[in-house]
Amino acid sequence: MARARKPRILILHGPNLNLLGEREPAIYGRTTLAEIDRELRARGARAGAEVKCFQSNLEGELVTRIQKARGQFDAIVINPAAYTHTSLAIRDALSAVELPAVEVHLSNVHQRAAENPVRAHSLIAPVCAGSICGFGPQSYYLGLEAALRLLDKEESA
Amino acid sequence: MARARKPRILILHGPNLNLLGEREPAIYGRTTLAEIDRELRARGARAGAEVKCFQSNLEGELVTRIQKARGQFDAIVINPAAYTHTSLAIRDALSAVELPAVEVHLSNVHQRAAENPVRAHSLIAPVCAGSICGFGPQSYYLGLEAALRLLDKEESA
Amino acid sequence: MARARKPRILILHGPNLNLLGEREPAIYGRTTLAEIDRELRARGARAGAEVKCFQSNLEGELVTRIQKARGQFDAIVINPAAYTHTSLAIRDALSAVELPAVEVHLSNVHQRAAENPVRAHSLIAPVCAGSICGFGPQSYYLGLEAALRLLDKEESA
Amino acid sequence: MARARKPRILILHGPNLNLLGEREPAIYGRTTLAEIDRELRARGARAGAEVKCFQSNLEGELVTRIQKARGQFDAIVINPAAYTHTSLAIRDALSAVELPAVEVHLSNVHQRAAENPVRAHSLIAPVCAGSICGFGPQSYYLGLEAALRLLDKEESA
Amino acid sequence: MARARKPRILILHGPNLNLLGEREPAIYGRTTLAEIDRELRARGARAGAEVKCFQSNLEGELVTRIQKARGQFDAIVINPAAYTHTSLAIRDALSAVELPAVEVHLSNVHQRAAENPVRAHSLIAPVCAGSICGFGPQSYYLGLEAALRLLDKEESA
Amino acid sequence: MARARKPRILILHGPNLNLLGEREPAIYGRTTLAEIDRELRARGARAGAEVKCFQSNLEGELVTRIQKARGQFDAIVINPAAYTHTSLAIRDALSAVELPAVEVHLSNVHQRAAENPVRAHSLIAPVCAGSICGFGPQSYYLGLEAALRLLDKEESA
Amino acid sequence: MARARKPRILILHGPNLNLLGEREPAIYGRTTLAEIDRELRARGARAGAEVKCFQSNLEGELVTRIQKARGQFDAIVINPAAYTHTSLAIRDALSAVELPAVEVHLSNVHQRAAENPVRAHSLIAPVCAGSICGFGPQSYYLGLEAALRLLDKEESA
Amino acid sequence: MARARKPRILILHGPNLNLLGEREPAIYGRTTLAEIDRELRARGARAGAEVKCFQSNLEGELVTRIQKARGQFDAIVINPAAYTHTSLAIRDALSAVELPAVEVHLSNVHQRAAENPVRAHSLIAPVCAGSICGFGPQSYYLGLEAALRLLDKEESA
Amino acid sequence: MARARKPRILILHGPNLNLLGEREPAIYGRTTLAEIDRELRARGARAGAEVKCFQSNLEGELVTRIQKARGQFDAIVINPAAYTHTSLAIRDALSAVELPAVEVHLSNVHQRAAENPVRAHSLIAPVCAGSICGFGPQSYYLGLEAALRLLDKEESA
Amino acid sequence: MARARKPRILILHGPNLNLLGEREPAIYGRTTLAEIDRELRARGARAGAEVKCFQSNLEGELVTRIQKARGQFDAIVINPAAYTHTSLAIRDALSAVELPAVEVHLSNVHQRAAENPVRAHSLIAPVCAGSICGFGPQSYYLGLEAALRLLDKEESA
Amino acid sequence: MARARKPRILILHGPNLNLLGEREPAIYGRTTLAEIDRELRARGARAGAEVKCFQSNLEGELVTRIQKARGQFDAIVINPAAYTHTSLAIRDALSAVELPAVEVHLSNVHQRAAENPVRAHSLIAPVCAGSICGFGPQSYYLGLEAALRLLDKEESA
Amino acid sequence: MARARKPRILILHGPNLNLLGEREPAIYGRTTLAEIDRELRARGARAGAEVKCFQSNLEGELVTRIQKARGQFDAIVINPAAYTHTSLAIRDALSAVELPAVEVHLSNVHQRAAENPVRAHSLIAPVCAGSICGFGPQSYYLGLEAALRLLDKEESA
Repeated sequence: MARARKPRILILHGPNLNLLGEREPAIYGRTTLAEIDRELRARGARAGAEVKCFQSNLEGELVTRIQKARGQFDAIVINPAAYTHTSLAIRDALSAVELPAVEVHLSNVHQRAAENPVRAHSLIAPVCAGSICGFGPQSYYLGLEAALRLLDKEESA
Repeated sequence: MARARKPRILILHGPNLNLLGEREPAIYGRTTLAEIDRELRARGARAGAEVKCFQSNLEGELVTRIQKARGQFDAIVINPAAYTHTSLAIRDALSAVELPAVEVHLSNVHQRAAENPVRAHSLIAPVCAGSICGFGPQSYYLGLEAALRLLDKEESA
Repeated sequence: MARARKPRILILHGPNLNLLGEREPAIYGRTTLAEIDRELRARGARAGAEVKCFQSNLEGELVTRIQKARGQFDAIVINPAAYTHTSLAIRDALSAVELPAVEVHLSNVHQRAAENPVRAHSLIAPVCAGSICGFGPQSYYLGLEAALRLLDKEESA
Repeated sequence: MARARKPRILILHGPNLNLLGEREPAIYGRTTLAEIDRELRARGARAGAEVKCFQSNLEGELVTRIQKARGQFDAIVINPAAYTHTSLAIRDALSAVELPAVEVHLSNVHQRAAENPVRAHSLIAPVCAGSICGFGPQSYYLGLEAALRLLDKEESA
Repeated sequence: MARARKPRILILHGPNLNLLGEREPAIYGRTTLAEIDRELRARGARAGAEVKCFQSNLEGELVTRIQKARGQFDAIVINPAAYTHTSLAIRDALSAVELPAVEVHLSNVHQRAAENPVRAHSLIAPVCAGSICGFGPQSYYLGLEAALRLLDKEESA
Repeated sequence: MARARKPRILILHGPNLNLLGEREPAIYGRTTLAEIDRELRARGARAGAEVKCFQSNLEGELVTRIQKARGQFDAIVINPAAYTHTSLAIRDALSAVELPAVEVHLSNVHQRAAENPVRAHSLIAPVCAGSICGFGPQSYYLGLEAALRLLDKEESA
Repeated sequence: MARARKPRILILHGPNLNLLGEREPAIYGRTTLAEIDRELRARGARAGAEVKCFQSNLEGELVTRIQKARGQFDAIVINPAAYTHTSLAIRDALSAVELPAVEVHLSNVHQRAAENPVRAHSLIAPVCAGSICGFGPQSYYLGLEAALRLLDKEESA
Repeated sequence: MARARKPRILILHGPNLNLLGEREPAIYGRTTLAEIDRELRARGARAGAEVKCFQSNLEGELVTRIQKARGQFDAIVINPAAYTHTSLAIRDALSAVELPAVEVHLSNVHQRAAENPVRAHSLIAPVCAGSICGFGPQSYYLGLEAALRLLDKEESA
Repeated sequence: MARARKPRILILHGPNLNLLGEREPAIYGRTTLAEIDRELRARGARAGAEVKCFQSNLEGELVTRIQKARGQFDAIVINPAAYTHTSLAIRDALSAVELPAVEVHLSNVHQRAAENPVRAHSLIAPVCAGSICGFGPQSYYLGLEAALRLLDKEESA
Repeated sequence: MARARKPRILILHGPNLNLLGEREPAIYGRTTLAEIDRELRARGARAGAEVKCFQSNLEGELVTRIQKARGQFDAIVINPAAYTHTSLAIRDALSAVELPAVEVHLSNVHQRAAENPVRAHSLIAPVCAGSICGFGPQSYYLGLEAALRLLDKEESA
Repeated sequence: MARARKPRILILHGPNLNLLGEREPAIYGRTTLAEIDRELRARGARAGAEVKCFQSNLEGELVTRIQKARGQFDAIVINPAAYTHTSLAIRDALSAVELPAVEVHLSNVHQRAAENPVRAHSLIAPVCAGSICGFGPQSYYLGLEAALRLLDKEESA
Repeated sequence: MARARKPRILILHGPNLNLLGEREPAIYGRTTLAEIDRELRARGARAGAEVKCFQSNLEGELVTRIQKARGQFDAIVINPAAYTHTSLAIRDALSAVELPAVEVHLSNVHQRAAENPVRAHSLIAPVCAGSICGFGPQSYYLGLEAALRLLDKEESA
């Protein structure tokens, strides 16, 4: 199905990501969330896409945003942060809206799972098209690219 | 203890139930939440009871609603949706208010547990009087009826 | 598919339910099985349905009854009691006959699972349309109503 | 030890196998149990052996049949169906009679274990000489052949 | 509460115990069940008690016997054999009749659990007053004595 | 590093603690949260410290409060209540702000874990300096004292 | 092998049993350990046996006593109390001395395992001939009788 | 779909099977692999089929052989030996080639699982049509027969 | 119940705590046990209480000390060190004496549990009134204060 | 550290990936491995990098290739396929060579883990910089891009 | 750091090793502990080292000996016997003294773990430099040699 | 049985050990495999034994080498490296050849198991005479000595 207009991508940031660049830089690096969002919008623009970003510490607010994405966005790139491992509600919301979604993580969650078994399983990954982790802010940029490729494929299908 | 006035029932809908009728109809059917609420109020009226309905995607908002039910409602019918399996806070709220509660689910959660072990245990069911699942919107109507029967028994006790 | 004749419902009671009203009344109440059966038949009659009841302590006898229900009954309401957690044979029989079935329990099995992990999983629930527990004899009456609603839906489909 | 007379083989069918050919044909095929028994007896006859078949839905009845096989039969071919995973009593009976036994299953139990962990272990297989599954009615015919080979080996020993 | 008449003890033997003395003598010894029953009745008589014995391979038949013990017997001595580890129905029956019960086993079940984890837990022991295992036929005789002591204590209370 | 000004302590109360004094007094006692907050502020004042208190039923709101504590408070005393066992987001927030934190609980969580395994592990304790539980409102007062001692040590270091 | 002299039985009591009759009488009753020892010696005397009793709170002291039993005693009756579930050293000592041993417990350990999984397995039972639990002081008396019967059998063998 | 030419069967032997007849004869018997292969070819010939045999100790070599079977063979009979429990690569290869496959084992793997839990699950069985174990070299002969029956059925379908 | 005399508190130190100040100072700090004991006695004196301290490396010796505390002390503050996770005997002793007890730990045991699962559960905490960990020697001082507050409450009750 | 010459990237494909485009296209798509390799080399060339590709079905051969990458390549992109979940040897090789590595998967491994728990954990991911899955051949292209970004960062560091 | 004087090695033997040569010779051989100690002292002397040996059945006594080894010994060779699997206190003592330690076992503990899962993990091994098992008395001699090599390396460092 | 000729020992090195001295020296040290092999041959020569060394990254190649050792070698010293935890095929090969074998590891595998549970169990150790780990290259030298002692004992038997 051909889409006449620009692809629109929703970027969702989970809890504590607003602290990025300040919080535990040894793990998360020094780039701030604002810088990442600016870069994502710029990259989106270059690829002819519209990118909107939203961060929340509230599980239910993220659920609501995902629900509202239907009709307003063509794909979702989500870093669920701590909710990766505890939020069945975000998972159900992603299943419900039936938009292609990409899970991204700044750090390598598989390494962190080794030190803390609570981080061993992602509740979110199985309802996404795919998952990218471990590349710092690059995880977001690769995630955006992956989302655009998914839309290309859909469109040409 | 005899109650002079009409029984009042609070219906609580958990996260993503606002999408009902639109979301994954193969699993959840085509009836919308507004239609279910209307039917519940009508059935309540026929049985001489007052029925109020509330939906939220936020765990804490559901907790607060349950807390406020004390004094305002005589029983709770709750479909905790995704929070069934993750919310100890809702469980604690239900324990705290000490109102008779009925857990309801549209789908057969025991079948869904087979495909996803996260859905294997309900944190909510053990603090309710009983639990009903698998009958689609009928689960709510049977749940309302069960709540009314619990109040009858209480009153006649 | 329209059904010209009365719906026929088979009620099955598992092991030890013949002691109902006498056994551990603090958990199971004082109503006898005969009283429940009478009430079920009366409610069935009022709803224009034929209700037959059968109790057995033998797993294999329950299996055989379920097998024979094909052609003789339109739906099954079953309280598998202790066999809920141990009988794969009853589960296989319910799968085989392909009649709509409703699982009912007098007590809240989710509460009992907390004290005894053997009671944590129902082998029967996943092969039923739905499950109702915790309302004492009302569980049976709600179960009958649920079964009748399932047949309505089927017929009108 | 040489045996002057014909080898006698007892075929045992567990719960719900009486429904064969009618029950879930997508899984179990369309051949009836009577047809399988006829074929088994015919194959037995061609191999100079006597074959008797027995089906029961009752665990205890199967236990009793196994006990009585001593002195009357030389080997047992058993499809324990649902009791495969739950009957320690059948296992103890097979241990006790000390006849060579062959476990057979129509479907591939290893595949079914993937969907339902209750089916992951056979309590019966470890007390049999060997086990055959997944070939539909052919599982029985291969099982009979295996039993006859076991007796040959015994005799020539 | 003083009892004017003789204490009556029901001895229950689970599946495969009818083979005693013949089956795997290395584990179970050479005494037959008839000899044990005779000895139990003789010991009962010497102690001024009436002893009745019953064996069944059917779980449900044992359930029914336990149910009927109410009013007819003062205590139960039960060797549940294989049903020790699989029968929740026998457990529920023992709970329901509220007679003092003693679990006995010929072999040391704790040793057998080491070789087969299915035998690691007794579903029956927690609903009995106490449990005796490992002494061959002496387990029954000690069990009878324990049951008589329990009745003494009850009577003198 | 010497601190010229008064130490400032943030007290955080998790979900349902607003019901304190009313909810399940057998477990949680009769002191209200307002009384505890008053006592904490008074004790803080006596020790030359500023104490602020905040309660929320929303996980994300607690996350945000912890984030904002940086620069505004010198230490955190937190009773995460139900979120103790389910909130990785609160854990990540506490890790991120790098303020000394003390976990407190009114009841003995180790006892409650015995009855409900969901309460067996604290996700919060490992990112706190230490943990205090079981002394009712005294847990808060000891927690405040512990926080002040941690700041003393820091300052004198 | 015939034994010319009196059988000698060592009774071993594990940690905290010296408090018997005082400690938690609801669970352990009001009989003191001295009274039990006196009764055991008297019963031993009546049966022509010599009975010696020893209590210790130290695991290693119990190990040493078991080691020294060789040559001095013919059988051991041991109530390992808390060491039942934690002492591999006592288990190894019992294996090493190769004397017939009987494990006894005052309370029904299977019931206590339900409330506390640490009490679910006995490290000691598998190296004893058999095990007796749940009959209060009678457990010791039945244990002494069992030990004497084991020696009879040995002697007559 | 009818096949004009002879059915071709590939027999695959996993690691250490080249030692057959020499290695642990108490478990594996005295027949050598060469003798089994000869018998398989002879039986194949009698049934009008072409049988080829291949053994390797290298997981990857077995993977490659399975891959190359497409177009060259109509069915596979495989004894994966130690790779049964550790090789996901062989499993994936069997899935990929989409030829009917039969898993065979000389010994009863269910018995061996009891002594060594690593042998409790077959990674290979779920991607085969069926599985045969415990009959020594007969397992191969029955496996060949099963494979030929599977091809018959396919052809006649 | 009013107590005329001074409260007496027993401080118990488990294995290896005699090395305090020398052993792994990075984890346990540089204060010696003698210094802690001196401070505890001084604080006790200031609060009008008598404080006695005792250390042992022997589990059984700690058991005996706890037993003897009855009548001689009003409360126990215990740092069970390594026995926290392995001593059911100390747990039983604390249950038996029925004195209020406070568990203390120098380090944050919840953090150490992450690196070593053996340290994940305290056998001692559930039989204490409450538990304090992670504050170095301050854990003892807060523990003493908690014990004194428990006695106040008791007395005023 | 500045690198004067072109970055060189080694692409490694694990077992069965040589079948790509033919094997289970519903899961893996229709692009062949040769096409992917061609695209990777082209993309590498455009980015000024040298790309070499290697596939093997043998675990040990992949180990050897990784070992030899030291000095010859600057980064590794690896799709370990089935060895993801079973090869500690490949993991150790990746740790040993200390080159930045990126794990890629065509399918969403988190979804496949749901159907088969063997696929639940990646042994390889924790020793890689990051991981990408679910985007079909795009996973490789994103993986190449990620590897190049890692080298940029290294160089500029 | 050069050591002017002879290396001094402490040999520690855990519970029941005093029975060596007498206890279960099939597992532990016929050499007595005195013979092993003599051989160890002789070998030490030949290597210019002083060897002292100590056995105890008491966990706490072993803890105390390890504590006292500081300053008196340069290395420890320990056979913790049954305490291998249960003593966190011995583990903590070994960590605390910071002397190089070598764990030795007469039997192959990995084989014994197969029959008894309690023996599956060593609490002691992770705090030792290394571990040796399965060579009977040779395990001690190799352990002494290993300890001497560790001291050589230390000295030359 | 006396052996006229020199003992011959096969040293086997598993995957990645060819990198020794280069790979992760913090864990594995700086000695190369060639140096270790030279030292082993020299020590063998001094002890009158012939030592041959072989390394492979391929599981199946190690299997084949073990198989061929029969008749050519008298004992095997094997460092299975990563295959320790994943290769049932190597285990089966060692069982099959029935030569005395010694497992060696450079690092302390018990410590590494703590950080990575995949390394918690050795599949190889139970089929070896004994196991040595943690002493760096000395583990090999002690392993060679242990193998020679095992042959001495065998010969003198």
